[in-house]
Amino acid sequence: MEDCLFCKISAGSTPAEKVYEDEDFIAFLDIKPVNLGHTLLVPKEHSRNILDMSDTSLQKTGPLLKKLSAVVKEATQADGITIGWNNEAAGGQLIFHTHIHIMPRFTNDGHVHWKGKENISAEEFSQTGTAIRSLLKNNPYL
Amino acid sequence: MEDCLFCKISAGSTPAEKVYEDEDFIAFLDIKPVNLGHTLLVPKEHSRNILDMSDTSLQKTGPLLKKLSAVVKEATQADGITIGWNNEAAGGQLIFHTHIHIMPRFTNDGHVHWKGKENISAEEFSQTGTAIRSLLKNNPYL
Repeated sequence: MEDCLFCKISAGSTPAEKVYEDEDFIAFLDIKPVNLGHTLLVPKEHSRNILDMSDTSLQKTGPLLKKLSAVVKEATQADGITIGWNNEAAGGQLIFHTHIHIMPRFTNDGHVHWKGKENISAEEFSQTGTAIRSLLKNNPYL
Repeated sequence: MEDCLFCKISAGSTPAEKVYEDEDFIAFLDIKPVNLGHTLLVPKEHSRNILDMSDTSLQKTGPLLKKLSAVVKEATQADGITIGWNNEAAGGQLIFHTHIHIMPRFTNDGHVHWKGKENISAEEFSQTGTAIRSLLKNNPYL
């Protein structure tokens, strides 16, 4: 897609510190890393975010995400890996071409996870559960 | 696995606000949600985290993650979805049975994304890229 930064990196017309590439995906270092080694996994075919991806591409994403997570962890001697996938601006997405953050993490590296709310009522949980289930009807397991 | 909370929820012996279930996966509401509707997608088969998952399970994860993200977004009328996948304690993992956070997000909901470092040198990027690539050798694309 014209004027899409990650399409240009995928096509090789914009430089990046590439660490992996195959027919369908490319991975390169984030230029503003949470920690050094922070890698972005990007499907070459343009999609806006996960909500816009094909199931074929999504099936290939999982095993590759594991492979790259293991390698990034080993190469950086990290203690853990946080994977982040932001979808739409409200979800934290800044570049509107699907990308997954693979972030090496170190004990006490200072990055703080969001605190969950503890004041949700049983009724709110139940109503929200019902709303989600009603969009996933005909589930024989529930 | 004995004494694993998410194995118990998968087996039905510990209650949860379940929103989805199939042969291989279960999804239920996080009891301390970042925002109401925060859902956990969990493979029933015990694994510690992504680094321990089978490729078969990972292939199934992607399309299901999309489906649930779309439904959680619609049910909560959210503006975006942030997906989080924490691996090992340093990566933010608290329960050591693989789970993926599907978090509905709202414009200006107050959750702040980690700031990336801007002081990384070209040499550091290059050395880290080399370290990752060397573990992924024989890549005909690079």
